Amino acid sequence: MAKELTSRQENYAQWYNDLVIKADLAENSAVRGCMVIKPYGYAIWEKIRDELDRMFKETGHVNAYFPLFIPKSFFSKEAEHVEGFAKECAVVTHYRLKNDDNGKGLVVDETAKLEEELIIRPTSETIIWNTYKGWIQSYRDLPILINQWANVVRWEMRTRLFLRTTEFLWQEGHTAHATREEALEETLRMLDVYATFAEKFMALPVIKGVKTESEKFAGAIDTYTIEALMQDGKALQGGTSHFLGQNFAKAFDVKFLSREQRLDYVWATSWGVTTRLIGALIMAHSDDNGLILPPRLAPIHVVIIPIHKNDEQLVRITKKAEEIKKLLISKGIAVKYDDRETHKPGWKFAEYELKGVPIRLAIGPRDLENNTVELARRDTLEKKIVPADGIENLIPDLLEEIQENIYHKALQFREKNTYIVNTWEEFREVIEVKGGFVSAHWDGTTETEEKIKEETKATIRCIPFDNATEDGTCIYSGRPSKQRVLFAMAY
Amino acid sequence: MAKELTSRQENYAQWYNDLVIKADLAENSAVRGCMVIKPYGYAIWEKIRDELDRMFKETGHVNAYFPLFIPKSFFSKEAEHVEGFAKECAVVTHYRLKNDDNGKGLVVDETAKLEEELIIRPTSETIIWNTYKGWIQSYRDLPILINQWANVVRWEMRTRLFLRTTEFLWQEGHTAHATREEALEETLRMLDVYATFAEKFMALPVIKGVKTESEKFAGAIDTYTIEALMQDGKALQGGTSHFLGQNFAKAFDVKFLSREQRLDYVWATSWGVTTRLIGALIMAHSDDNGLILPPRLAPIHVVIIPIHKNDEQLVRITKKAEEIKKLLISKGIAVKYDDRETHKPGWKFAEYELKGVPIRLAIGPRDLENNTVELARRDTLEKKIVPADGIENLIPDLLEEIQENIYHKALQFREKNTYIVNTWEEFREVIEVKGGFVSAHWDGTTETEEKIKEETKATIRCIPFDNATEDGTCIYSGRPSKQRVLFAMAY
Repeated sequence: MAKELTSRQENYAQWYNDLVIKADLAENSAVRGCMVIKPYGYAIWEKIRDELDRMFKETGHVNAYFPLFIPKSFFSKEAEHVEGFAKECAVVTHYRLKNDDNGKGLVVDETAKLEEELIIRPTSETIIWNTYKGWIQSYRDLPILINQWANVVRWEMRTRLFLRTTEFLWQEGHTAHATREEALEETLRMLDVYATFAEKFMALPVIKGVKTESEKFAGAIDTYTIEALMQDGKALQGGTSHFLGQNFAKAFDVKFLSREQRLDYVWATSWGVTTRLIGALIMAHSDDNGLILPPRLAPIHVVIIPIHKNDEQLVRITKKAEEIKKLLISKGIAVKYDDRETHKPGWKFAEYELKGVPIRLAIGPRDLENNTVELARRDTLEKKIVPADGIENLIPDLLEEIQENIYHKALQFREKNTYIVNTWEEFREVIEVKGGFVSAHWDGTTETEEKIKEETKATIRCIPFDNATEDGTCIYSGRPSKQRVLFAMAY
Repeated sequence: MAKELTSRQENYAQWYNDLVIKADLAENSAVRGCMVIKPYGYAIWEKIRDELDRMFKETGHVNAYFPLFIPKSFFSKEAEHVEGFAKECAVVTHYRLKNDDNGKGLVVDETAKLEEELIIRPTSETIIWNTYKGWIQSYRDLPILINQWANVVRWEMRTRLFLRTTEFLWQEGHTAHATREEALEETLRMLDVYATFAEKFMALPVIKGVKTESEKFAGAIDTYTIEALMQDGKALQGGTSHFLGQNFAKAFDVKFLSREQRLDYVWATSWGVTTRLIGALIMAHSDDNGLILPPRLAPIHVVIIPIHKNDEQLVRITKKAEEIKKLLISKGIAVKYDDRETHKPGWKFAEYELKGVPIRLAIGPRDLENNTVELARRDTLEKKIVPADGIENLIPDLLEEIQENIYHKALQFREKNTYIVNTWEEFREVIEVKGGFVSAHWDGTTETEEKIKEETKATIRCIPFDNATEDGTCIYSGRPSKQRVLFAMAY
């Protein structure tokens, strides 16, 4: 068992890293903070991307592609945006290398210095709104409902595979509207798309809400978020949808002639999710044996492994396995038959557990005699012998059941680890000892929010939509409060 | 008709640019040499990508993702590669901006200078082979059959939308093999995939062949290519597949233990196509009215336009149009019903001609009476009245016919414009006056190839696979030659 993981109990961070590496999801590259997404990890991203892309298109969006480079001056146009994004970034200053005259190899050609530096996009509001300026004259040109799948770069000092990397993959939606109401509606529609995706596909229950002033996107009026709870009691922001008001339209002077023949600035939204979702998938569901993947995002649904003592047995098992494989594929199920002679069955069992394949079928000589297979569920680790006949009807239902079970397990975990807290002592105890979501009264000031963060490292994840409004007193300042907000330690 | 194009006759280059802009395919961005791919152009790229991705997966490949950045020193490791790729490139030298102390706005923070500059990938052989070094120990780890969909940057001085841009989108396959034979087989397999894609999907006949020494990829042993002829008589390289031998394995010290327990360097291939294919699509098929899209790559197959004088007519036409739309969609056909009141039917006719929608259906009051529709083919511009009943059976066949027709038209054009030439005078005349492919004897030396290029700007596009070997004399040097090669002016 060369591939054993550190247990979650022993060291959660190390468990996570072990899992990412050993399940062949990703690894660190030769470039500081950048990862290589390996084929198995990328196959999960392809599933995520394809489902989201379908949902975006169903809600009227189209894809486009904007430049990787953003002129430095673009960032200065939106006052808050520049503070948030134009600092830790990759700066292109030259466009040529040359052979050094003194034989030192390749050096930067100082004669090829750019007049204005180019920034590798950390997010594309500026270049896109500069482009929209040319596309929008009248209300007839609106709405613009565009999404982009792209790579972005934010120069992070401390990186972790999937969770925080210098370069990452994401999608960024950028929409333009004639009215405030329409833009707000779009912002919330896309938050709902993210929440639906998280719950139905990632099997990840999320809390929808709005960010506080200090946690919102730099340049937004309001940032909406979906927040999920990981198994170590820390929260993870799964996706954000920003109501940008007229901020970027004003920064890039994008006006339109309304139906009533008035000139007005255009209203905007932007929304995105990243390869970080793979980190959330791992941390929400997996165990000490490895990954647990919800079937709807699993690249392989069913793996079939032969158990044989000789070639004659293998031939007969292979015949049976191929029959089953064909039947399952006809039901839209992704099946892998692993008949490699280089590895023993036990090794393969551990390997596919590590990789989170939802269902494993093993076929041995006795199974052939009895026309059965051994079926193992990855989520519960249960094993049972089932009849081979009709397995193509059993498996689709079982995959649905696994999907549901993973979701309900995560939901139960979250419910068990959400605390309603009324005093500062309780608050500190939950944050520092138990972990989890903490629902507590807050006086609404940035000052208090920052003090709490300084003292406990906990942040306000969001003001949840479904908050009961009730009078109370702020756990920190004791001042009056109208509603509870959701605190947690967070990734 | 605000959207009229310059005619091909008048100015082919201007016609091309007009078409790209006016058909909403792409536009220049605020960043020198970088384009914005607009939704309609991107939808064509999505069709190209999805079909190729399916073909790559059917031939056993998986996708992965490698970093955007390549450490400068990586380029120096392969002697030819560095000459070809590490010169005109985007160089990241710093990782932070700051507010200038003298109030000059954002400036580069000189304290945040990278120890080693990072190059934005112009192609990824170096970073990928540096990664493969960690993945390959034995023949059991081979083959590795990986593809990447990504953006790359080559600092081009003269750029043209789709054809040559500083940043472009592409796919790059990078495979690793235990034997020379297997790598060569892979190189040719992928060339065949490209040729099949070009002919079956792009309706673009191509000539397969091998590049000469001076035209091959920097770092390859051999580069194979598919070459197509555009309507102005210039050739366009549609895709390349490189047999890299052990060059990159040696540069990055990637050895494996063979089945026979010998240590040997790994064999490699790489292969790619880019957003340039959209340029080829346009230039091969389109006319003075706009784009002509082969149905298999058309984002919209059929557009339906109502012709009405009043609202009552529009209601009845819409009912009919929606019926037809539903029937066609059930056959897997992409249909758009354009009932916008803001534009007249004539404007819409011109618009969808410009955008290359293969079939247009118009429905007027008389059509309702007679239960007919007016059907117009984009490729031939023919119009006829057809019965509405059974149109869902007519259209799929017609789309296939259009696909075939576009291919055959391009094939006939190429045949008509391919010249077998035996003297230098003839050669110059064809290259300088007629344009097209020129099949001529060449003495096999780089010197002669360069002289011909200097004097005529024509290059050897490839040594075609299906060349008849025959004795002859070089059209330029008069020296003996064993076979004809294919010359042309090229994009």
